[in-house]
Amino acid sequence: MAGRVQSFAPGPSMLPDEVLSEYQASVGQFRDTGLGILELGHRSGQFEEMYESTVAHLRALLAVPDGYEVLLLHGGGRFQFTMLPANLLPEDGSADYIETGHFAAAAAADAAAYGRVNVVASTRRDRFLRLPRAEETRSTAGATYTHYTSNNTEIGTQFRKLPRHHGIGWLACDASSDLLTRRFDVGAHGCVYATSHKNLGTAGVGIVIIRSDLLAPVRKLPAYLSYATHAQASSRFNTPPISAIYVMSLMLQWTADGGGVEAMEKGCTAKSELLYGLLDDSDFYSPLVAVEDRSKVNVTFAAPTPDLEAAFQEAAAQRDLVGLWGYRKVGHLRASLFNAVPLTAVEKLADFMDEFARTNRPRLPAESTSR
Amino acid sequence: MAGRVQSFAPGPSMLPDEVLSEYQASVGQFRDTGLGILELGHRSGQFEEMYESTVAHLRALLAVPDGYEVLLLHGGGRFQFTMLPANLLPEDGSADYIETGHFAAAAAADAAAYGRVNVVASTRRDRFLRLPRAEETRSTAGATYTHYTSNNTEIGTQFRKLPRHHGIGWLACDASSDLLTRRFDVGAHGCVYATSHKNLGTAGVGIVIIRSDLLAPVRKLPAYLSYATHAQASSRFNTPPISAIYVMSLMLQWTADGGGVEAMEKGCTAKSELLYGLLDDSDFYSPLVAVEDRSKVNVTFAAPTPDLEAAFQEAAAQRDLVGLWGYRKVGHLRASLFNAVPLTAVEKLADFMDEFARTNRPRLPAESTSR
Repeated sequence: MAGRVQSFAPGPSMLPDEVLSEYQASVGQFRDTGLGILELGHRSGQFEEMYESTVAHLRALLAVPDGYEVLLLHGGGRFQFTMLPANLLPEDGSADYIETGHFAAAAAADAAAYGRVNVVASTRRDRFLRLPRAEETRSTAGATYTHYTSNNTEIGTQFRKLPRHHGIGWLACDASSDLLTRRFDVGAHGCVYATSHKNLGTAGVGIVIIRSDLLAPVRKLPAYLSYATHAQASSRFNTPPISAIYVMSLMLQWTADGGGVEAMEKGCTAKSELLYGLLDDSDFYSPLVAVEDRSKVNVTFAAPTPDLEAAFQEAAAQRDLVGLWGYRKVGHLRASLFNAVPLTAVEKLADFMDEFARTNRPRLPAESTSR
Repeated sequence: MAGRVQSFAPGPSMLPDEVLSEYQASVGQFRDTGLGILELGHRSGQFEEMYESTVAHLRALLAVPDGYEVLLLHGGGRFQFTMLPANLLPEDGSADYIETGHFAAAAAADAAAYGRVNVVASTRRDRFLRLPRAEETRSTAGATYTHYTSNNTEIGTQFRKLPRHHGIGWLACDASSDLLTRRFDVGAHGCVYATSHKNLGTAGVGIVIIRSDLLAPVRKLPAYLSYATHAQASSRFNTPPISAIYVMSLMLQWTADGGGVEAMEKGCTAKSELLYGLLDDSDFYSPLVAVEDRSKVNVTFAAPTPDLEAAFQEAAAQRDLVGLWGYRKVGHLRASLFNAVPLTAVEKLADFMDEFARTNRPRLPAESTSR
């Protein structure tokens, strides 16, 4: 598609041309329905078929074991900060939360409306620039679950292995920014959730993968807040975000066609290594986070001054490379390498970064002195 | 657009060609962003501008008085069955609910998770085929609010005037199926909400219009459940359903271009009168609901037998007239006349109905006898 830029935004992500073309055609007519995707009925056979194949695709790509429900809900990932504890944190119980960023902290804060929350590890004092080490992570006896964020989009940290937990409760994971970017052991979790607009399409859907024995809520809830409601209705308790689910179905097909999760993992590794290699070799840019905790989907770095970081983004935009701002509470620069971002775009970014450093490096000492 | 059918479905509604064409173009490129609408960032100036103009359009079309917030949220209308009482029904207080259909009943049931619910009027014993009369509607002293459904999509009843309430609390209205189809006194309400996929675009957004003094929740809530959270964040607390909001913005523009709410009301009147006139003159079809409570957006009727109702839908589909099934708990037939359904489509439907009645009438007595 002509006139398009390469987006490294933290989400919504750019989407593959194939997905966009097929979705675009569906706006005029979805399959043989005589209606466009925006007009499709959620009680129609065509939607049902599309929904079922989307869930089947998710199950296959993520190797979801038997005994798990897959739900596609309104509200993105954020709504799960509420639904998870509303359904599963007993009023007289507690849950452990690992605090590795502002979203992890927000999940813990929302859970506190329902029960006791133990922040069992936090790297807040290190401005979340690293993950807690296993020996820094306590566990609470009797905690119902341990919640963590697999990848911190803001600052660019990512758990390489499952965080330590006490082994009695179950793990709950906000996998919003790295689900489908690498192999992932769903079976080690009681509940995994993610938003759609990073590696699974566009904004508007939340994905919840939950062990079937956890579906019954621990308290009286209005129907909409209960996982059981949505499971019973195959995610059609109310009119679902039909068109966003269709985008997801196209994105999952694209993911499968591209070799599935293993291929995506290889891609993320190659894309991130290209940038980290450049950053490590640079005397101009500095990577922000601890080497052992680096994310393969969000690469964060600093240029020597805030002015240069602003100039970097402007110059990049002139090359059609956009979305490189850092999270607003963190600042600096960030390249998000979601599945739909092609290696060629990252190569183009790397070339630009090299050139920008070369062009702006000579002036640095003089500028620094003059301040 | 070629090969399209006319949909009389109860939602998602069909959409005007102009809306579909403009939306379709935006999938490849939204304005001058270099990205499509599915990829647009919610922190971008372009989204902000689009969001603000959507809200401004809604305010203008509905003549929303000062002192009201307009929110565009995930979760459709149904999520408001939860949010409304979660925010505003005190644990030791009560709310009055008028039960005029299955959705009105579901709203009352969800509210019961938060406080005492008084069903102050119900036409359940009449299978919701009429609305309660003013003298049948009690009011509870001290009730915080009185909730009603302005139009019952299932069965086709619609309040012509505001329901009676005790005058101390405020009115809450689920206007999912008739918001923007007629003049509506927002200022007589504390809270009005609606889903998007009937007269405001496609599925995926809930519209909430709420008096600013009602924003503070009456109980401790996780952030996501609180109206205040979303008001403070201009509906961008989490990534909004961007693309569905854009469809809404196009639909609102189309509504304004078509003459606004007054013109829509005239359109609904003309479309519904055409069908009710036909039904009243018919010895084949029977309208389902009481004359004085007839909806202008959902016209429900029966054919002489279930078999004929099935045959009706099949024959209609052959003329590209679809979505005429009745609500699953009600059965029979229903034509939904949302704003985007053109009068010409209703004329085509009326012609078909005439013809179907003519063709199938003569066999009736014999068939009836043979049973």
